Amino acid sequence: MRRPRKSDFPVSEVRRYLEPGPIVLVSSRCDGKTNIMTLGWHTVLEFSPSLVGLMISAGNHSFQMIRDSGECVINLPTTALTDIVVGIGNTSGAEIDKFAEFGLTAEKAAKVGAPLIGECHASFECHLHDDALVGRYNFFIFEIVKAHVAASPKHPETLHYTGDGVFMVSGKIISRRSKFRPEML
Amino acid sequence: MRRPRKSDFPVSEVRRYLEPGPIVLVSSRCDGKTNIMTLGWHTVLEFSPSLVGLMISAGNHSFQMIRDSGECVINLPTTALTDIVVGIGNTSGAEIDKFAEFGLTAEKAAKVGAPLIGECHASFECHLHDDALVGRYNFFIFEIVKAHVAASPKHPETLHYTGDGVFMVSGKIISRRSKFRPEML
Repeated sequence: MRRPRKSDFPVSEVRRYLEPGPIVLVSSRCDGKTNIMTLGWHTVLEFSPSLVGLMISAGNHSFQMIRDSGECVINLPTTALTDIVVGIGNTSGAEIDKFAEFGLTAEKAAKVGAPLIGECHASFECHLHDDALVGRYNFFIFEIVKAHVAASPKHPETLHYTGDGVFMVSGKIISRRSKFRPEML
Repeated sequence: MRRPRKSDFPVSEVRRYLEPGPIVLVSSRCDGKTNIMTLGWHTVLEFSPSLVGLMISAGNHSFQMIRDSGECVINLPTTALTDIVVGIGNTSGAEIDKFAEFGLTAEKAAKVGAPLIGECHASFECHLHDDALVGRYNFFIFEIVKAHVAASPKHPETLHYTGDGVFMVSGKIISRRSKFRPEML
């Protein structure tokens, strides 16, 4: 599998990748073990600090690992990884080592202990910022403290989950830049 | 403009339309006035009750209307409405009547005072469920209490905002249903 070469990317601009609503792969490490989960319930919350909200169901093996470590990495897979995304979503880290099982590369992050997934288009290192709604809604607010993004394509083909085993695919672009007021861009 | 005929849809299944992360149009009514805003920062939070989280920036004219009324409607535009979406995002309800300005039809909702947008593919009536994070993050948690969806297409072409005036388009489908464990569907 291809491992795109990634460069630093401004954390205040990660909305370019997350606001469109793709399925992401969330990697974690706790007590020396790693795990990966698929996640589609997330939202951008702020540009600076770069805040995102993730609903991580308590039934996931990753839930306690992320809660205890206070860290994770949000990785952006493209359609090239569709079958791996499905495989990761249909298995549990309680039973298998997902990096080994799916042939993925755990790369060292810069600011968190959780690993980056080398085969993804982008990886966003996260610190837990606010757990006020974790008890009630399993809703974690993270600050993205470091972003790594492949230089091209600028708008990769991503997966957007609809439930029922069906993904929508994004990739085609419509620009209306000229119709925006400058302060709205 | 076309006004698709919509039918009741199970509120516990709205993730089909919202989880893929489309730009939505949020309509509101307060003190006899209506408004519409574009919004891309949202996430599904729960199937039943059907909960969604929306980050509504306090700079929007809609913010106070939605906070005071405790209601809104989340409407799903397709790419047929691209220029209207851009127009709504680049104007303020403090200055214009957006329904009139953009030729949209305010239809009566069943359970809230805020209007449905007739030209959208789907409309989800919302009651404010939890405002615990409104003060800190402008993050509203709504319960969808009624859903109206056009019967076809099942997966309409939707807009996914990346910032900088650029939208990604979703519509093409990949199904991996056969590879999911039944309990994961």
